[in-house]
Amino acid sequence: MKKIWIVYLLLIGFFLLYVLDYRSQSQLNEQWKTAGLRGEIDEKYVMVTFQMGIDYWKSSLKGFEDAAQALNVSVEYRGSTQRDIHEQITVLEQIIAKRPAGIAISAIHPVDLTETINKAVDAGIPVVLFDSDAPGSKAYSFLGTNNYSSGVRAAQKMAELTNESGQVAVVTTPNQQNHQERTDGFLATIQRDYPEMKVVAVKNGKGDQIYSRQSAEEILQDYPDIAGIFATEANGGIGVAEAVRENGRDQRPKIISFDTDKGTLDLVKNGDISATMAQGTWNMGYWSLQFLFSLGHDRNTAQIAGMPPVPEQVDTGITVVTRHNVDDYYAK
Amino acid sequence: MKKIWIVYLLLIGFFLLYVLDYRSQSQLNEQWKTAGLRGEIDEKYVMVTFQMGIDYWKSSLKGFEDAAQALNVSVEYRGSTQRDIHEQITVLEQIIAKRPAGIAISAIHPVDLTETINKAVDAGIPVVLFDSDAPGSKAYSFLGTNNYSSGVRAAQKMAELTNESGQVAVVTTPNQQNHQERTDGFLATIQRDYPEMKVVAVKNGKGDQIYSRQSAEEILQDYPDIAGIFATEANGGIGVAEAVRENGRDQRPKIISFDTDKGTLDLVKNGDISATMAQGTWNMGYWSLQFLFSLGHDRNTAQIAGMPPVPEQVDTGITVVTRHNVDDYYAK
Repeated sequence: MKKIWIVYLLLIGFFLLYVLDYRSQSQLNEQWKTAGLRGEIDEKYVMVTFQMGIDYWKSSLKGFEDAAQALNVSVEYRGSTQRDIHEQITVLEQIIAKRPAGIAISAIHPVDLTETINKAVDAGIPVVLFDSDAPGSKAYSFLGTNNYSSGVRAAQKMAELTNESGQVAVVTTPNQQNHQERTDGFLATIQRDYPEMKVVAVKNGKGDQIYSRQSAEEILQDYPDIAGIFATEANGGIGVAEAVRENGRDQRPKIISFDTDKGTLDLVKNGDISATMAQGTWNMGYWSLQFLFSLGHDRNTAQIAGMPPVPEQVDTGITVVTRHNVDDYYAK
Repeated sequence: MKKIWIVYLLLIGFFLLYVLDYRSQSQLNEQWKTAGLRGEIDEKYVMVTFQMGIDYWKSSLKGFEDAAQALNVSVEYRGSTQRDIHEQITVLEQIIAKRPAGIAISAIHPVDLTETINKAVDAGIPVVLFDSDAPGSKAYSFLGTNNYSSGVRAAQKMAELTNESGQVAVVTTPNQQNHQERTDGFLATIQRDYPEMKVVAVKNGKGDQIYSRQSAEEILQDYPDIAGIFATEANGGIGVAEAVRENGRDQRPKIISFDTDKGTLDLVKNGDISATMAQGTWNMGYWSLQFLFSLGHDRNTAQIAGMPPVPEQVDTGITVVTRHNVDDYYAK
């Protein structure tokens, strides 16, 4: 009788084992059928910038990390500490040697990095560019701001702030292509869409607070009725705001600036700067990693062989920051 | 002694049960931690086009389906059978009523669909546009070909085919914006980069095979040394090819056409058309669904509140099809 008990117990035990094992196996099957987009945690994607310490990159890196977390892969953040081309090339060479799953790079120079970028692509490493392009390289995509469009948006905001009438001016850095494009978009839009408005001056602020302040002082002197000034970069915006504040007239011209560093946000908050243009930096990081993942996992193998595997160019968008939404933009 | 055996067996059995259960639990934990991007199969994303039957949409739909499969969600394909604005509006209204997880739409008209698109967005349904934009609508993104860039690429290919010298011409549809942009990109590139080349004629082929053929006959008559003709759309390319073939001169002008319908591919294969520009249609569909998924799953909640949740504009890219790679482009 006791032997039969042992046999019963063994049979019951094995049956339970069988049920449990079946349960775990069917979980595996379900996971397989509906796996979703998911990589391995030892798949490492590297973000490379220059001037690594500045606030500007934080939101791009956050996007890069958010995408990595969503896709179950790892990230590393590298770059040069200064605006140093040779240092960025050296860092990139070191990264290539480790053969990561993909590299997203903001190019410090549109030409000088091309050879190293091509070396990575030729070694089979997916590469995309973000924020600053290297148009002649073999990188698969560029994700960044359409600077001309951002100038259009600034002009529309300026028209709103000035009731679509009066004289306006621009303080920019004419020899830098992204700033020239912002200016072009602004000028073309004012001219085409706002007949009661006129751009009376375009000054060179050299991307510098002091020079931009001087430019603004000249504008205030030459055009006492000036209704608005657009600064195409952040240092310039702060300089222009200083000039306007010290000028102390009753009807202050409206100022529109660019980017969302703390100094600019503080001036938006206190009203010295009416609006600033925020770039879609989170999108740059998030979709850079998505594109690299897609390239690395041959997501496009099902498609027609010769087609571009990821989009060639992505305009990551612009939003307008005013005192009403400025609190959202302070780094958390 | 036998009682002790039973106790031993029970202990061993429970230990095995414990190990197995732990194993299945830890799988669940791992699945949670590293879930990847994954939706539910009852999450339905709808692609909407016009002229549903034509080959042109096949590759976009394939991209849309590939992304849905990767993300474990469902798709539906809807649209108007003809180029009928009212039909597309009606279909869109029906889709909105069913509250799908997202809608990717190729707008038959840049303005007339705006109200209906906005209705969808206001109802909380993510909407992106692909291939044909409705720039004034509230849709979150546009994914399509940068037509100016495609004209630049056509000019570069034409320069390669003609050894960068000689007279060239364009047959286009001047009153359609995308064709005007293709022409602009072509003209600007020839003028800027190829001093030994000259665009001697830009003719209106009206998007029609017969008219384009007549235009090409006029070009062949007026410019007997013509080295190349760029047709900015597929019907025109076939018409131009007919004119050149019947003209029967020894040194035939090189023809570059647009898109990859079967008629065009056949002429590329037999050499009548030297190259045709293929749009990144798979990218349009694949990344439309990725963007809709991202919008629907609030992938951007971690980011700064005011930033654009997905990129505003995506250039899905262009590839050049010649007899060397033409076989890849036939619909499978």
